Amino acid sequence: MSQGNGMRAEENDGGQCVVRLEPSERTVEVPVGTLLEEAISQAGLHVPLPCGGQGRCGRCVVQVREGSVRRRSALRLSEDDIQQGYALACQTLVNEDVTVWVPPHEEQIQRLEAGDRAEKAAPEVVLCEHPGKPWIERYHVTVEPPTMGDNTPDFERLKRELTSQHGLRDVRPTLTALAKLPKVLREGEWTVTVEVEQGNSDSPDGPYRLLDVLPGKAETQVLGLAIDIGTTSVATYLADMRDGRLLDHASAFNNQIACGEDVISRIVYARQPGHREELQGRVVATINALMDDMLARQELAPEQIALAMVAGNTTMTHLFLGLEPQYIRLEPYVPAAGRFPPLPAARLGLHMHPDALVDCLPAVGAYVGGDITSGLLRTGMYEEEALTLFIDVGTNGEMVLGNSEWLITCACSAGPAFEGAGATSGMPAVTGAIEQVWIDPRTLEPTWTTLGDAPPLGICGSGMISLLGEMMVTGVIDKSGRVAVDGRSPRLRRSEAGPEYVVAWAADTETGQEDIVLTETDIQNLLRAKAAVYAGATVLCESVGLAITDVERVLIGGGFGRHIDVEKAIQLGLLPDMPWDRFTYLGNTSIQGAYLALTCRDSRAQVDDLAGKMTYLELSADNRFMDAFTSALFIPHTDESLFPSVQQTLAELRAQGESGS
Amino acid sequence: MSQGNGMRAEENDGGQCVVRLEPSERTVEVPVGTLLEEAISQAGLHVPLPCGGQGRCGRCVVQVREGSVRRRSALRLSEDDIQQGYALACQTLVNEDVTVWVPPHEEQIQRLEAGDRAEKAAPEVVLCEHPGKPWIERYHVTVEPPTMGDNTPDFERLKRELTSQHGLRDVRPTLTALAKLPKVLREGEWTVTVEVEQGNSDSPDGPYRLLDVLPGKAETQVLGLAIDIGTTSVATYLADMRDGRLLDHASAFNNQIACGEDVISRIVYARQPGHREELQGRVVATINALMDDMLARQELAPEQIALAMVAGNTTMTHLFLGLEPQYIRLEPYVPAAGRFPPLPAARLGLHMHPDALVDCLPAVGAYVGGDITSGLLRTGMYEEEALTLFIDVGTNGEMVLGNSEWLITCACSAGPAFEGAGATSGMPAVTGAIEQVWIDPRTLEPTWTTLGDAPPLGICGSGMISLLGEMMVTGVIDKSGRVAVDGRSPRLRRSEAGPEYVVAWAADTETGQEDIVLTETDIQNLLRAKAAVYAGATVLCESVGLAITDVERVLIGGGFGRHIDVEKAIQLGLLPDMPWDRFTYLGNTSIQGAYLALTCRDSRAQVDDLAGKMTYLELSADNRFMDAFTSALFIPHTDESLFPSVQQTLAELRAQGESGS
Repeated sequence: MSQGNGMRAEENDGGQCVVRLEPSERTVEVPVGTLLEEAISQAGLHVPLPCGGQGRCGRCVVQVREGSVRRRSALRLSEDDIQQGYALACQTLVNEDVTVWVPPHEEQIQRLEAGDRAEKAAPEVVLCEHPGKPWIERYHVTVEPPTMGDNTPDFERLKRELTSQHGLRDVRPTLTALAKLPKVLREGEWTVTVEVEQGNSDSPDGPYRLLDVLPGKAETQVLGLAIDIGTTSVATYLADMRDGRLLDHASAFNNQIACGEDVISRIVYARQPGHREELQGRVVATINALMDDMLARQELAPEQIALAMVAGNTTMTHLFLGLEPQYIRLEPYVPAAGRFPPLPAARLGLHMHPDALVDCLPAVGAYVGGDITSGLLRTGMYEEEALTLFIDVGTNGEMVLGNSEWLITCACSAGPAFEGAGATSGMPAVTGAIEQVWIDPRTLEPTWTTLGDAPPLGICGSGMISLLGEMMVTGVIDKSGRVAVDGRSPRLRRSEAGPEYVVAWAADTETGQEDIVLTETDIQNLLRAKAAVYAGATVLCESVGLAITDVERVLIGGGFGRHIDVEKAIQLGLLPDMPWDRFTYLGNTSIQGAYLALTCRDSRAQVDDLAGKMTYLELSADNRFMDAFTSALFIPHTDESLFPSVQQTLAELRAQGESGS
Repeated sequence: MSQGNGMRAEENDGGQCVVRLEPSERTVEVPVGTLLEEAISQAGLHVPLPCGGQGRCGRCVVQVREGSVRRRSALRLSEDDIQQGYALACQTLVNEDVTVWVPPHEEQIQRLEAGDRAEKAAPEVVLCEHPGKPWIERYHVTVEPPTMGDNTPDFERLKRELTSQHGLRDVRPTLTALAKLPKVLREGEWTVTVEVEQGNSDSPDGPYRLLDVLPGKAETQVLGLAIDIGTTSVATYLADMRDGRLLDHASAFNNQIACGEDVISRIVYARQPGHREELQGRVVATINALMDDMLARQELAPEQIALAMVAGNTTMTHLFLGLEPQYIRLEPYVPAAGRFPPLPAARLGLHMHPDALVDCLPAVGAYVGGDITSGLLRTGMYEEEALTLFIDVGTNGEMVLGNSEWLITCACSAGPAFEGAGATSGMPAVTGAIEQVWIDPRTLEPTWTTLGDAPPLGICGSGMISLLGEMMVTGVIDKSGRVAVDGRSPRLRRSEAGPEYVVAWAADTETGQEDIVLTETDIQNLLRAKAAVYAGATVLCESVGLAITDVERVLIGGGFGRHIDVEKAIQLGLLPDMPWDRFTYLGNTSIQGAYLALTCRDSRAQVDDLAGKMTYLELSADNRFMDAFTSALFIPHTDESLFPSVQQTLAELRAQGESGS
């Protein structure tokens, strides 16, 4: 029953074959029928799997130079590509000994990480106005030295004095503190400094925990860490726990990005055995690297970090804790938990005090997570009378509508475009990112500003918004986002990827290697993202019988950049057409909220309250959302009457152009 | 300034040299001036260091076959030995490239471990009569499946039902249970079995902890483990937590024994960097091996073990938890803590449920530890009116005197002789151990019984007592323990180690390799041990104004064997001369108490109460103890009038001998 070459080879299982990898010259022996991606992974190399290995994105392409393989799928590959041996590593099985060329994909990520760690302006942090009970207190204690007449054990001696000198009843030792106590007591000649946790989110009034003990009257700092685990990037703020002062901050791409670019791809990736552990390991490694950097810079020790407060979307929190994320993806979209137990750092492998608690902020549902409850805390809108819309634009777009009386929330998938990932020249808001663009309407030549005033490396979210707005008003793109390659400028051209606009020529960039461009495909991604956000906001208002124009204040959070150009965002149709002074851009609200909870116990308790109060509107079950989304896919919108100020601007520009020409 | 060969070499530091080890053929490169013991250790081999590397015991002897070394000490080595290259590994520095022969010391320990794991009669366990609240409860729960209308997260759904169906409020998830919950709920089609901890020793009425969740209505066992960490041996009992049934038991030498035979040597050993971690690793490995064996035998999984209760002397508990033990050894003898925080198994690296708590029973002082508070629980004497003396004879001899009104305790160093270590032919009470001996007074030929009726391997504690008593009444030894090598029998002979009595000829033993003997040195060790115990008991009674003869009951615990021959123990002067029916041998009271606390929450709470109630008498500060000890170094005692029954027996025997001859 011969069925041609491909099928014959398929029957040849049971044997082993050798996979030779170029240019690394590594080899690995695997059973016939093994996925190329697995063979590559076993050899210690990686191909990116942004779609989670589903054969959709084409990013794991490799070239088979010798030997035969079987392709389960060849989506995104032309007949010509296949002839030349190109194959998707996630969809291709090894038939016999093969030689495969694996392109060095990781270069871009490494470059951006390096860029991100470069210095940038210190972020603002919001501190709580009411000084609540601190998480950690320090006390100096002098203990009576033991004698043969009273040789009570060290801990019980210390405990006795903590009660009599400082009124602390029921102090429990951590293992770390207990293990060092005897030496420290004697080194300090019976005077020591103790670090006592006053309760935690799991037991706010629970027993005191003795976290650390230092000889003599020590004055070293007690540190806390706020962590924002985004799908695309991870941000960390290091706090002095005595006064809430921000000591340092660092951020980087989430290392999980190699396993999928959005939460759905990561969840799909997590289905394979061992992948949940891998994803957990990757985000823990990302956080550890950031912490190690900050501690080294500040000359501080990991053991000084006594508490970590973590904000992440529901999927990120699940993957960080090693929880099963599968049912977040499947209807009816159910997370493993909404509140998460605080865990000792040692359990998670974080480089801090082994007994310090790592506390994840609560989620409201599958797509409204700790990043939103945290961001909501930051906004303070739950204490105001004004009807406020809070929009967090990340890889997902989540929003909360309400005031001191009520809160309603929803989420829509925006994709990573506004976070600088998934676009040809996209990058996060770090040094070298183009953040503002102006296009000369006659020459179509752009001018730009970059973060850190460095030569441009790429375009961040705020740069994308600015650029798109300019392209729209200068007619470089039409209402549906199509690029007019009409010979008006060499910057408008048709490349292999389709029509595109060149923002910066290679010679003007930091690397000097490649032009910085915005392609028509990039624009379509951005349009889908902006349409999702606008549609979400509309439907959220409608669900409580209001129009979007009833909103008195719009608060915007996200990782766009230092600020958002509200005018351009309205021109684009991302934000509703309202007076500019109703908008406030707050930056990364997720980490700011985590920082607030880290530095104030009352604020941490407030987050639990808020999570309980929010009503969750499920958009995927809502037909109104699909209608609103489709209508919002144009610039600014199918219904132009919703954007009167944009119509007016366009009319004015047209008039200027006519009078100028 | 030439000072001869040895001194010149001493100056040659800074360089490297190669140490070649025979017979293993391993080599290791180390700096000149490195201790041989360290070089051997770096090569992955071990020499025993019973004295903690102080050069006192001579057990780490090796032979330097090529190259020069420098001996810091050569205690226990003759001029001849030194000529032949023998050296103490713990006291010898490498001068240049050397070849060293390392004798395969570990053989004996391995042999005994194998013997110990062989089958023996199941031990008795005492269960609590009042069925208290269990530590762990199991519930079957059916949860409403989620819908788009109610997609509350899995844990919160389950929690809701635990409250409404079973009245459990405030259930907290462990990470392990949370990580598996989503899959288990769906696999069980929304019916699951949950395992809930009802509180623990740290928070007896604290929140419930969700330990495990299983699909459907599961009937697998919930297990608990009682652990007795002795200086010499470790014993473990595996319990069914539903009914307290003993499922299996196993014991072995404590792997720490290679680092010192008594607590003092271990504490000295722990002073070097990394040694505290090594000691902790060794005892954890010992326990894990025992657990793995039992679980494999019973076809059970490590995750089923939901609680461990640990009893050990203060030093053993410190080393198990990785606490600093140094100040236990130094006046005024202060432990790091008396009560120890229960810790999750994952933190300690034990092969059980990662979130299961490992609970160490409290200590009263540096030398009255959790083994004694545990043993006291087992005796029940704290509920009786009768004045009771409880003696636990292990590597240390500890005792408690009192009744339901008061309790006083003390400890004295007995050495490991009664636990079968430290004597030429000593072994623990496992299969093949000689446990009873009779000597024919005319021929001096012995007959014996062994545990498991196996050919003899060595002599356990009860065998030592039986043998010594026989040797005394047959005149083989005199009152001071000297062996009469008088030609009456070939069994009385003078070996390299001095005078000795041959209990079994090599041909009659299990291995056929070596005679089983009791040497005069062994006897001196046993006499010191028995004198310490008797002196302790005397001084304890005197300290409360009583005579030892006022004691109404004597309860004996320890690892002697299946029983103690009270007649012989009195003849020897180990136990006071009282009617035999006042004595009860309870076996290993430490593990029995741990088992009781493991299977009954009220009993666990009782141990904390008892620890608080006991008055600790410090013998090392007590001159009366040294006097009493010196007087007790004879058999049965310097003051024979304290042992009237022994005098009578000796008189009778003498009369028999005279009439028989």
